[in-house]
Amino acid sequence: MARWERRDVVVRTNATGHALTAPVFVARGRQARPLAYVQANVHGGELQGNAAILALFELLERESLRGTVILVPRANPVSANQQVGDYVAGVYDLLTGNNFNRGYLYLTGPSRSASAASYVDVDSFAAAHESSPLGEIQEGFREALKAAVAAVEAESRAWGTDSRLEFALAIQKMSVEADLVLDLHTGDRAPRYLYAPEGAVAAARAFGFPFVLEVPARFGGALDESAFVPWQDLSDAFRRIGRNDVPRLVDAYTVELGSMNAFSLEAGKEDARRIASALRHYGVLDGEPDAPPAQITTCSVGDYRSLHAPGGGLGDHAVEPGTPVKAGDVVARLVDPSRCRSLPPRVADAAVEVRAPEDGVVLLFHAFSSVPKGARLFSMMTRTRPL
Amino acid sequence: MARWERRDVVVRTNATGHALTAPVFVARGRQARPLAYVQANVHGGELQGNAAILALFELLERESLRGTVILVPRANPVSANQQVGDYVAGVYDLLTGNNFNRGYLYLTGPSRSASAASYVDVDSFAAAHESSPLGEIQEGFREALKAAVAAVEAESRAWGTDSRLEFALAIQKMSVEADLVLDLHTGDRAPRYLYAPEGAVAAARAFGFPFVLEVPARFGGALDESAFVPWQDLSDAFRRIGRNDVPRLVDAYTVELGSMNAFSLEAGKEDARRIASALRHYGVLDGEPDAPPAQITTCSVGDYRSLHAPGGGLGDHAVEPGTPVKAGDVVARLVDPSRCRSLPPRVADAAVEVRAPEDGVVLLFHAFSSVPKGARLFSMMTRTRPL
Amino acid sequence: MARWERRDVVVRTNATGHALTAPVFVARGRQARPLAYVQANVHGGELQGNAAILALFELLERESLRGTVILVPRANPVSANQQVGDYVAGVYDLLTGNNFNRGYLYLTGPSRSASAASYVDVDSFAAAHESSPLGEIQEGFREALKAAVAAVEAESRAWGTDSRLEFALAIQKMSVEADLVLDLHTGDRAPRYLYAPEGAVAAARAFGFPFVLEVPARFGGALDESAFVPWQDLSDAFRRIGRNDVPRLVDAYTVELGSMNAFSLEAGKEDARRIASALRHYGVLDGEPDAPPAQITTCSVGDYRSLHAPGGGLGDHAVEPGTPVKAGDVVARLVDPSRCRSLPPRVADAAVEVRAPEDGVVLLFHAFSSVPKGARLFSMMTRTRPL
Amino acid sequence: MARWERRDVVVRTNATGHALTAPVFVARGRQARPLAYVQANVHGGELQGNAAILALFELLERESLRGTVILVPRANPVSANQQVGDYVAGVYDLLTGNNFNRGYLYLTGPSRSASAASYVDVDSFAAAHESSPLGEIQEGFREALKAAVAAVEAESRAWGTDSRLEFALAIQKMSVEADLVLDLHTGDRAPRYLYAPEGAVAAARAFGFPFVLEVPARFGGALDESAFVPWQDLSDAFRRIGRNDVPRLVDAYTVELGSMNAFSLEAGKEDARRIASALRHYGVLDGEPDAPPAQITTCSVGDYRSLHAPGGGLGDHAVEPGTPVKAGDVVARLVDPSRCRSLPPRVADAAVEVRAPEDGVVLLFHAFSSVPKGARLFSMMTRTRPL
Repeated sequence: MARWERRDVVVRTNATGHALTAPVFVARGRQARPLAYVQANVHGGELQGNAAILALFELLERESLRGTVILVPRANPVSANQQVGDYVAGVYDLLTGNNFNRGYLYLTGPSRSASAASYVDVDSFAAAHESSPLGEIQEGFREALKAAVAAVEAESRAWGTDSRLEFALAIQKMSVEADLVLDLHTGDRAPRYLYAPEGAVAAARAFGFPFVLEVPARFGGALDESAFVPWQDLSDAFRRIGRNDVPRLVDAYTVELGSMNAFSLEAGKEDARRIASALRHYGVLDGEPDAPPAQITTCSVGDYRSLHAPGGGLGDHAVEPGTPVKAGDVVARLVDPSRCRSLPPRVADAAVEVRAPEDGVVLLFHAFSSVPKGARLFSMMTRTRPL
Repeated sequence: MARWERRDVVVRTNATGHALTAPVFVARGRQARPLAYVQANVHGGELQGNAAILALFELLERESLRGTVILVPRANPVSANQQVGDYVAGVYDLLTGNNFNRGYLYLTGPSRSASAASYVDVDSFAAAHESSPLGEIQEGFREALKAAVAAVEAESRAWGTDSRLEFALAIQKMSVEADLVLDLHTGDRAPRYLYAPEGAVAAARAFGFPFVLEVPARFGGALDESAFVPWQDLSDAFRRIGRNDVPRLVDAYTVELGSMNAFSLEAGKEDARRIASALRHYGVLDGEPDAPPAQITTCSVGDYRSLHAPGGGLGDHAVEPGTPVKAGDVVARLVDPSRCRSLPPRVADAAVEVRAPEDGVVLLFHAFSSVPKGARLFSMMTRTRPL
Repeated sequence: MARWERRDVVVRTNATGHALTAPVFVARGRQARPLAYVQANVHGGELQGNAAILALFELLERESLRGTVILVPRANPVSANQQVGDYVAGVYDLLTGNNFNRGYLYLTGPSRSASAASYVDVDSFAAAHESSPLGEIQEGFREALKAAVAAVEAESRAWGTDSRLEFALAIQKMSVEADLVLDLHTGDRAPRYLYAPEGAVAAARAFGFPFVLEVPARFGGALDESAFVPWQDLSDAFRRIGRNDVPRLVDAYTVELGSMNAFSLEAGKEDARRIASALRHYGVLDGEPDAPPAQITTCSVGDYRSLHAPGGGLGDHAVEPGTPVKAGDVVARLVDPSRCRSLPPRVADAAVEVRAPEDGVVLLFHAFSSVPKGARLFSMMTRTRPL
Repeated sequence: MARWERRDVVVRTNATGHALTAPVFVARGRQARPLAYVQANVHGGELQGNAAILALFELLERESLRGTVILVPRANPVSANQQVGDYVAGVYDLLTGNNFNRGYLYLTGPSRSASAASYVDVDSFAAAHESSPLGEIQEGFREALKAAVAAVEAESRAWGTDSRLEFALAIQKMSVEADLVLDLHTGDRAPRYLYAPEGAVAAARAFGFPFVLEVPARFGGALDESAFVPWQDLSDAFRRIGRNDVPRLVDAYTVELGSMNAFSLEAGKEDARRIASALRHYGVLDGEPDAPPAQITTCSVGDYRSLHAPGGGLGDHAVEPGTPVKAGDVVARLVDPSRCRSLPPRVADAAVEVRAPEDGVVLLFHAFSSVPKGARLFSMMTRTRPL
């Protein structure tokens, strides 16, 4: 039986002084580690991860918990409440334009909100731990990362903490502790798929999602990168001084649980089952992961390409998200009745056929069926291969 | 074969002087009347009517057109382009809060943008036409309505035309000419249904939609009301002076073609078939309307009730839109993980079951699965009966 | 010395379950009545009333308080936090388009959110109190109004309270108790001015603002109307049964404290002094009101007219807000460089001169210097006279 | 007399197919070069640059034009029309969160929208032009930059041009031709000041603004950087191969003309006079620049620091923008009435004094007087020195 705790963390204080908080649930098992950090709904319109976490509440009561799981549903009340009409777009902060999943701190390199003094120099660390045992390296490096977080926070005091940094600090104080980080998102209109660190093949298979995008160890501001890139940087630094026995000790995934706006408690149970399989792979839960599906398609995130609308109009999909296509196949029609300049007006004049520029899998369509020219109409995996 | 014309009408000029226009397509048949005015997408996020109009382009080439059809897809480029993130909420003007379908002029009574001088007094008109033949009444009244539109426009010149009135004038100059007005909308998440004027039973059946909301002849600012209420007012005025042979000579419908954000050219063909059936009922097209479905459920629009969320949360539907329920049936669950105050956390603590307060048909769910307290969670037909 | 209390009222609960509250401060003097209710910032961008209330905190400690004052700064945290970029537009709810100052309940007549059962029929009340003494009428009517508020609330339970009604109930439960209601707003770009009930001349003079708009006793949804119209209705009902000794027993004012976005603690002290003068007029504070200024200009709110931009462009004011003008005077220039079609380009081609259509006082300019065609460019008092 | 041309460039096509265009005015003098490119209002709420350009229209008719001036007022109709309520925030694209002044292409290095193939390698260029005369270098490098722009455009065809890139291409096709680029912006609430390239002291003095922020030659996405950094990169590359006679041949400035939302034709004349002085410095106009003011204060842009609000509240400035302060001086008060927890309530409890963390000049305050915690409350020049 897990031992549970609950607290609330403040992620922003609004203009009238109200604190916006996220609920944090901690389930503790037989031992402290491995520790998994799981959050959902950092983008305000991406809801299904909350259903997964709710299902995990009950799953963790049924399964045998070895390590610790931190669960943060509704992690971003700022974004969840930036509603216009009935919709929550949720990706960008209406106040600052910031993508809520691009403002995290790079703890082993320079990032926007931190000075040079406030990150860990992996080469110095490796040099200082040249002959330390792995456990000591792991523990020492984690302490160093936590010290970097604290340094950024201390440094921000004189001039005040900007709201983006406040959010990053609130989340990373939790995630920096983790051996495994899962950031539950959704695509716009998409099947379930996974962003996985390069090389984490067996683990990625444990999730059992049919599509996997491989993420190189380059920091771009997302939570998954903020969690695993420093540990890859550390591994690389040790390799540079000739020590090849220090693997990347933390993995992190962005888990895309279907489409924006969708929310189903029932589907959340299946999502929780897949996450539990991964937790077993990482030893957070006892037992073996589920057998992976017969086929998982993967490509590098660099080969995940977006097609931008060649004109304004109404999008009508010719294929379902998750469908393999050949270069030249019609993927969508983009319809603008004002293009009917000759009479009688004809659908053919209004509709532009948009074709796949390359072979691949159409993974994601724009969330809304009306788009301006230059908006992402769909995204495709290209140069795919089996995982 | 229809004779076609195309023009563009300006519905707003933006701050940089760019005119936002709607395309107007006119198909002329053997005779000028009956004249049907069909527009789509006045609410920027309600897209499917455009697919119906595109399908009507081709249907009107195949069928025998007796009267005239004016077709205005993308009628409201203002709203269609008020996009935040990927979404167009589209009901309310981001500049003024105005519902884009509540600002039309009441041509036989006082409305927001017009003085007493600028509407037709139906009792005076009836008195003056006490013994006129019906055709003369019809023609004379339409001219009077057109004069009222012109008077409002003239009157607005001294102090300038506000943007809401400019939109109303642009549309009503077209719709005032019509014998039949179809305003193509969608529900939030809904099946196809119809707002029909009280008493228009046979016509409403000609559309063949399974659900019909009956609209009394009271002006509330919507286009359908702006079109049929004046003619009902006229009929009532004649009845008051003892003449019972003047029926309402114009009908108008708000046609709800499914859900916001959905857009399908294929489904548009079926929508066009239903509209064509109604056009045949009204004699705009030659031929007979299709046989209506076995069952059409109706209620008065006054018995169409909305349930407001009893708390903030994530909505998970227990029934599909269009489903009959009994009072006390669970219609939706409203989920907020922060309600899990006791540990271990349980889904049951997070989820509030929301039940139907009365018997009826759940017709519409909120467009987005995350709602604040007090938002419309769903709407139900109550006191239903077969049409 | 006033006795103080403080509490917080919930005005909305957001999608993540956070309650948005307004702080309520009550200062109690020697006796319970007269009771003044003063709120600020119902429109999220109209800030200066908060400075006035802060200054009143200290003024009420210095002056002799006879009755009771309820002070609610930041009354609308919903609106205050609907920020886009750096700005809070604040008039319309981004979720529903509702003007936050148009959703109050009409307690002696039908309003949007209430059934016929839930308001007071003034004629029945007058008949039942035909020979009651004034004090009894006052007390009985207030109880009846409170019962109406309670009835609306009870009635809303079955289908849930919509967010607009929830806000109205939260505020009106407080304001219905008051003998005097002050709703502190600001104009867009404007001097200080007052909306005063018709006939409240001496009281309006006590405020000492140079401009007064007279509001007839017709309910349009604003707080001031919600407070004084029922009491005027009561007075009228008694007059209809021949009793002329029942005056309107409650007054209410919308007090416009300069421009949106402006906030000055220093100017708030002067604003508080003016409000204190009115509180003395009404006997809430001991003492006499200040001598009014030499000239106060007034007109009926029906003669307060808005000029809508004749085109899109950049507005440059030719006069300051609060300036008298003659018909034909240039009030503003509306500039759009894209109108320079002939070369060399000339300012004269870009700028349209906008002139006063009538004699009057230019009271208010649009808050932003870029406007689309049809936006309110400025508003003027016409048919002015000294108060 | 200048020879004038006018055209319109499309910067975006919206969802209903309407092209949003910016007007381009070209004034040609005696010779083609030097060529100055001047645009205004890329951020939709920063209006005054348009007044400056209008005044330049007439100034260019009065003065002797040696080279060419391209003038683009209202350069960003996308942003100018992203209005919510009465306000245009204007910095961030409501669709994508992008800062409209951070998406330009880095033509001598990798940028977001371009592959490695589509920028100029300055070292290769320098090597290939090791012994070329300066004029040939200048011309050749400009051709290379134009080829890079064309390459990015060609490369974007297969997958479509995203809206940010489309904007960058539309602007940079014009600005890449220039010897001098002026991007007319405003601060939030600020005096007039200048972002000037490091080292351009005499030129910066020619503008005559009292405050100058020095910008290092590092690309961050802004237009001024996109224009001058490539030429600095080229100069550096020549220096690396031992040739020190190739200066930076293009300068670019972001010119901050006061506060957002302000628009004055009259003030625009003075702004145009200052710009004309700079145009004379650069030889675009004949004659000598005006004498600079007695004192110009400067600091590096790295020493231009922002203070983030320590809590939510209403901001009241203690000093005017442009005021020198000492560390510890009160710069603003941040007021939240809900902080009055003890009774009687006191202003002192509501108001937090915000002090300057260092000596410097308070240059800019937040555009709106209500801010959440973590918003930029004000920005200060620190480590200032005379220019």
